[in-house]
Amino acid sequence: MIKRLTYGLVALLLLAAGPLSHAQETHTLRLAQTWGPNTPILAETVQHMADMAETMSDGRLQIRIDPANKHKAPFGIFDLVRNGQYDMGHTASYYYKGSIPNAMFFTTVPFGMIAPEQYAWFYHGEGMELMRKVYEPFGLLSFPGGNTGNQMGGWFRKEINAVEDLDGLKMRIPGFAGEVMAELGVAVTNIPPGELYTSLERGTIDAVEWVGPALDFNMGFHQIANYYYSGWQEPGAEVQFLISQKSWEKLPPDLQEILRVAMRTAAYDMYIQSTHSSGEAWSRMKDDYPDVTHRTFPAEVIEALRAATDKRLKEVAEGDPLAQEIISSQRNYLKQVRQWTNISDKAYLDSVAGE
Amino acid sequence: MIKRLTYGLVALLLLAAGPLSHAQETHTLRLAQTWGPNTPILAETVQHMADMAETMSDGRLQIRIDPANKHKAPFGIFDLVRNGQYDMGHTASYYYKGSIPNAMFFTTVPFGMIAPEQYAWFYHGEGMELMRKVYEPFGLLSFPGGNTGNQMGGWFRKEINAVEDLDGLKMRIPGFAGEVMAELGVAVTNIPPGELYTSLERGTIDAVEWVGPALDFNMGFHQIANYYYSGWQEPGAEVQFLISQKSWEKLPPDLQEILRVAMRTAAYDMYIQSTHSSGEAWSRMKDDYPDVTHRTFPAEVIEALRAATDKRLKEVAEGDPLAQEIISSQRNYLKQVRQWTNISDKAYLDSVAGE
Repeated sequence: MIKRLTYGLVALLLLAAGPLSHAQETHTLRLAQTWGPNTPILAETVQHMADMAETMSDGRLQIRIDPANKHKAPFGIFDLVRNGQYDMGHTASYYYKGSIPNAMFFTTVPFGMIAPEQYAWFYHGEGMELMRKVYEPFGLLSFPGGNTGNQMGGWFRKEINAVEDLDGLKMRIPGFAGEVMAELGVAVTNIPPGELYTSLERGTIDAVEWVGPALDFNMGFHQIANYYYSGWQEPGAEVQFLISQKSWEKLPPDLQEILRVAMRTAAYDMYIQSTHSSGEAWSRMKDDYPDVTHRTFPAEVIEALRAATDKRLKEVAEGDPLAQEIISSQRNYLKQVRQWTNISDKAYLDSVAGE
Repeated sequence: MIKRLTYGLVALLLLAAGPLSHAQETHTLRLAQTWGPNTPILAETVQHMADMAETMSDGRLQIRIDPANKHKAPFGIFDLVRNGQYDMGHTASYYYKGSIPNAMFFTTVPFGMIAPEQYAWFYHGEGMELMRKVYEPFGLLSFPGGNTGNQMGGWFRKEINAVEDLDGLKMRIPGFAGEVMAELGVAVTNIPPGELYTSLERGTIDAVEWVGPALDFNMGFHQIANYYYSGWQEPGAEVQFLISQKSWEKLPPDLQEILRVAMRTAAYDMYIQSTHSSGEAWSRMKDDYPDVTHRTFPAEVIEALRAATDKRLKEVAEGDPLAQEIISSQRNYLKQVRQWTNISDKAYLDSVAGE
């Protein structure tokens, strides 16, 4: 009798404890990021996402973040997650155009969409579906992971008044934008970040493209180059969260939604933090270095850059139907949404610009 | 012995079941919204927030939404939540300028910030803190609840070429913007939404301000007024979530964070949905009604509207230190962030506009 009662109660106990331990089971995801542990805005965005996920899940979802100095592969995040060494990554899709050429389109494209337009393409156009098509063969899910805002065209030591001024110009500008610049005769160089300031100061390079005021500030380029040009090459650079399909599927539905929403909010928040920090940094740069001045490329330079961009995009898409599908999806979407941007924010900003 | 063992096991059972039932306790919050049950974008945003909260909390956080036809007080949400009839609300802060004049500033201000600038002010400037100061005396918390994007200046049946053209013009334009327009001689009228189309068609009014293409489409104004003017009056209208401090404090920390993040994401998502839908609707309007054309107010009209805005703001702020604090916080923040907007998105949009 004692025994039977005891068994019965133990069974009840297990019944009661079962769902409890299930509900409170902790899931730990290891995340590798391209950035250092203290990279402003970018590393903060990842930590912010992890904090929201932990608090919302009452500690059941833990994201362990390894910065670049830990895993030593800042531009190998795609492989680290694909190979199962990490569950998640925070990086930029266009870093992997060597392995998957079509990854490039999900960060930004020269003469493409600005941040809110591109988010609209991701979430209401075909963006998420096309990104899924590109990453699914690798067992990966990719999500928007934060926007830098419109990136600046770079710091120049002398003014650019015509296309000829670009011929032979020595400039640090990586990736696809560098390929486009090279079409116009720019001598594109690749110099490690730590040597950029000295290279620009000594004239080893004439110009450098980095990000925007918020991230350029610590690089100090405004101390040695007076002309800060508006951009054309990365109108709304979106970084990304990667997660392996396997790790995703191990999460219960509530934690999947917590993770999805934490990533989505962190991404938007990065766009807003970038907006804030860029305003603050640009204001400080001008106060401290009154010779620093803003410039826009002349229309003929913009036209030449556009033509070179179209040429390179055509080459990239040749023989790749998915690339063609993505390019035309982005072009058609831009055409529709830009008309709205033009009659709303652009018209408004123009109307109050003179004041 | 049996008894003691049984007690012991029952105690263990309670111990095991205790935290379980606590963790699974369901919290239901009743929310009153200004909108009808099917108002595009706005009602969808509230439902979207509730869905995220429910899924992230595994059903422990339930938001019950009552649309305007249920509670019958679309512009009384502030009172419904303040008096404890509802835990939460979704509405627009500027509807309550009659009860709390300073509530007006947290929606949008003529010649103020566009959406990303204003989010930066809320989250990185003094916005959230100032909004807390305004709502705390009423036992309420207020959070950004979604942005319509830059609102259009309205549908006009004839062109506005000079300030004189506004004199005597009969226009539906409510709120603070209406007060500003009245300063310029506009005969501001208040006509129920259901009668606006007929009034415009019959010439009872000459112009009507509504929102933007996404929400204007169903109103049909584009069928009877050809000139669609860019706006000046609501450059980034943010609606709001209200929640009573008491209801908030009853939630455990994980559900507070789930609610906070769900509201924040839903707000950003509404801005992006508005961007998408406005692009789509504007494109359809122009296709279906080729006579519909976009206009911007001439510089002298913008200047007159700006002067009238400044005059009215000065009157509003007179003798109210908190109003003065908010106005100057917004002005100073705008001054800093707009310089960034101008050298990034504006410069970029200008450079590609001719193409």
